[in-house]
Amino acid sequence: MPAVPPSVDRPGGRLVVLGGGVIGWSVAWRAALAGWSVDVVDSRPGRGSSWVAGGMLAPLTEGHPGEEALLELGSESLRRWPSFAGDLEAAAGQPCGLSAEGTVVVGLDSGDRAELARTVEYLIAQGRCVEILDDDEVHRLEPGLAPTLTSGLSISQERSVDNRALLAALRSATYRAGVRTVERAVAGLDDALVGDADQVVVAAGIGSPELLGASWSGAGALLVRPVKGEILRLRHRSGAIPVPRHTIRALVHGRSVYLVPRSDGVVVGATQHEAGTDTTVTVGGVRDLLADAAAVLPGLAEFELVEHAAGLRPTSPDGVPFIGRLDDRVVLATGHGRNGVLLAPLTADAVVAELAGTPVAAAKPADPWRFS
Amino acid sequence: MPAVPPSVDRPGGRLVVLGGGVIGWSVAWRAALAGWSVDVVDSRPGRGSSWVAGGMLAPLTEGHPGEEALLELGSESLRRWPSFAGDLEAAAGQPCGLSAEGTVVVGLDSGDRAELARTVEYLIAQGRCVEILDDDEVHRLEPGLAPTLTSGLSISQERSVDNRALLAALRSATYRAGVRTVERAVAGLDDALVGDADQVVVAAGIGSPELLGASWSGAGALLVRPVKGEILRLRHRSGAIPVPRHTIRALVHGRSVYLVPRSDGVVVGATQHEAGTDTTVTVGGVRDLLADAAAVLPGLAEFELVEHAAGLRPTSPDGVPFIGRLDDRVVLATGHGRNGVLLAPLTADAVVAELAGTPVAAAKPADPWRFS
Repeated sequence: MPAVPPSVDRPGGRLVVLGGGVIGWSVAWRAALAGWSVDVVDSRPGRGSSWVAGGMLAPLTEGHPGEEALLELGSESLRRWPSFAGDLEAAAGQPCGLSAEGTVVVGLDSGDRAELARTVEYLIAQGRCVEILDDDEVHRLEPGLAPTLTSGLSISQERSVDNRALLAALRSATYRAGVRTVERAVAGLDDALVGDADQVVVAAGIGSPELLGASWSGAGALLVRPVKGEILRLRHRSGAIPVPRHTIRALVHGRSVYLVPRSDGVVVGATQHEAGTDTTVTVGGVRDLLADAAAVLPGLAEFELVEHAAGLRPTSPDGVPFIGRLDDRVVLATGHGRNGVLLAPLTADAVVAELAGTPVAAAKPADPWRFS
Repeated sequence: MPAVPPSVDRPGGRLVVLGGGVIGWSVAWRAALAGWSVDVVDSRPGRGSSWVAGGMLAPLTEGHPGEEALLELGSESLRRWPSFAGDLEAAAGQPCGLSAEGTVVVGLDSGDRAELARTVEYLIAQGRCVEILDDDEVHRLEPGLAPTLTSGLSISQERSVDNRALLAALRSATYRAGVRTVERAVAGLDDALVGDADQVVVAAGIGSPELLGASWSGAGALLVRPVKGEILRLRHRSGAIPVPRHTIRALVHGRSVYLVPRSDGVVVGATQHEAGTDTTVTVGGVRDLLADAAAVLPGLAEFELVEHAAGLRPTSPDGVPFIGRLDDRVVLATGHGRNGVLLAPLTADAVVAELAGTPVAAAKPADPWRFS
């Protein structure tokens, strides 16, 4: 079924955004600037999957053969991040935590390094820029890395963002732009809070399928499912090694671990499990994350373990989100999986363009009808 | 300097107990039953070292050559635990979480098993009862133990207690006995709250030396120092192996770990560091505890990690607490280190006897003047 062109495409109407996470608030903020009168509705604004994100802006190191559409979407959104961050900070009056440094990738054993070599081959075949590092260069970039790590990759165009600083900036910017954030659960699109909206954006992550109900049986958004990701937050202690400057991604005996710097520490992620809506953090998950993180950066053993948490990544069957129009009143922005923070600028631009009746070509791979 | 006999030894006077932990409340409860009018003063009652205890009642498995006095004190207090618990539960109207099962001790590698053999030798030389277990017996007692653990010890007379259930029961029993718990910091023994007390018990853990100040330069209690112990609380999840029935102590490549059952999970401890009053929980500490716990009981990997915390054990130079009279008004009950929960019944009995002017012989090794 093709997308139906909107009957209401004029800015100035009333817009309800269901979902107050990075995606929902980014859409709300940009839509308010475009002239919409916006309400964001969420039972726990800012406390869903966005709250436990790593915040990597890393389309290349998240790239896997067969996921070229996601690589392209992510790269396009990464290009939009600097100006998005600049606008947001000016609008919010506070920093959003965008880093200035790229990613360093390392592998612990020979199998891990062979896997990285395949990644390099793939990225180069996709025309991407990857720098191969020798022993000296790896330890010059990140002196805290284990001495046994003798080679690596540098992907200098990637970035990271402090997800909680970003959420705070988005909350401030939306508030200043006149967006009302309503802390309430919504049962469906016929809820009283949604009733009189001219347009509705569904950005409710794993809650999206239930919100949509059975009305759009061909829409891919009904296929969004929760994938559990466990993360740890570590804080620097006096006497410990400095916080790394780059995002560090590593393969440790076949297991993937990432370390994303914050001003006062590191976020370590992420195990991934298909586990329904269970957000308990398991002994095995934390054990592996801590062991792998300290195998890569041994000095982390002296950091403080501040928090362990699990988030539910709203994941689509092909890893690509659903961004676009469902009918003349409902637009989707969901299913971003592990890449919600990365894809926020592109998603916001695409949704606001869609609301104005002028879809963005770059968002075409995220067509919500692509599975029908 | 010898202890000065009390000028005020009659029950019915006003008693101030400085410290609302397991020791302070046990003393307060028993003293109230003996006729004293009791105030307990603590800035955070129930939230000090007692809150993050493992709750092992394990004088034998805590026994080390050269620490015979502690072994004897602990064994004496363990004998008093069943009636203490019975009285407490009747007085509190709620359970105090005393277990019915003993300790199983295992060693992972041959070095660990050699160390356990030395422990057995030592305990037998001390006339203690230890049962040596073969492969079948170990796994019959605790089916979740790793298959590689092929021998062990059973110490069936040991017990454990749920430290938080115990604190709740003590709070209730003291309240019902007319004890007032005042939530306030005390600067010293000349504080207004202490001023008009006939007798003062100092049970303030690591805060004891500062409370005493420079007035008793020969008293060992001034030598109490904080030793940091990190613990984890794991919760059973559906589908995981059952919670173990016994306390399990293990040596894992020379590192000691214990698993103490709770009704809904397990407490894992404890790293030990001399680290001043720092209670941050380190990445290295949690990493080692999780790895060691799951090496012993692999099914724990599926438990939930609920909490990580560090407590400051008030530790004396010889591991033996300070229980006894400092002068005609001040009695000490501090420096219990890792054994505060175990030693609570004996300490309470000894302090109440001391208040009545009839010191208990069993507490003699804990003489506060033994270092002068």
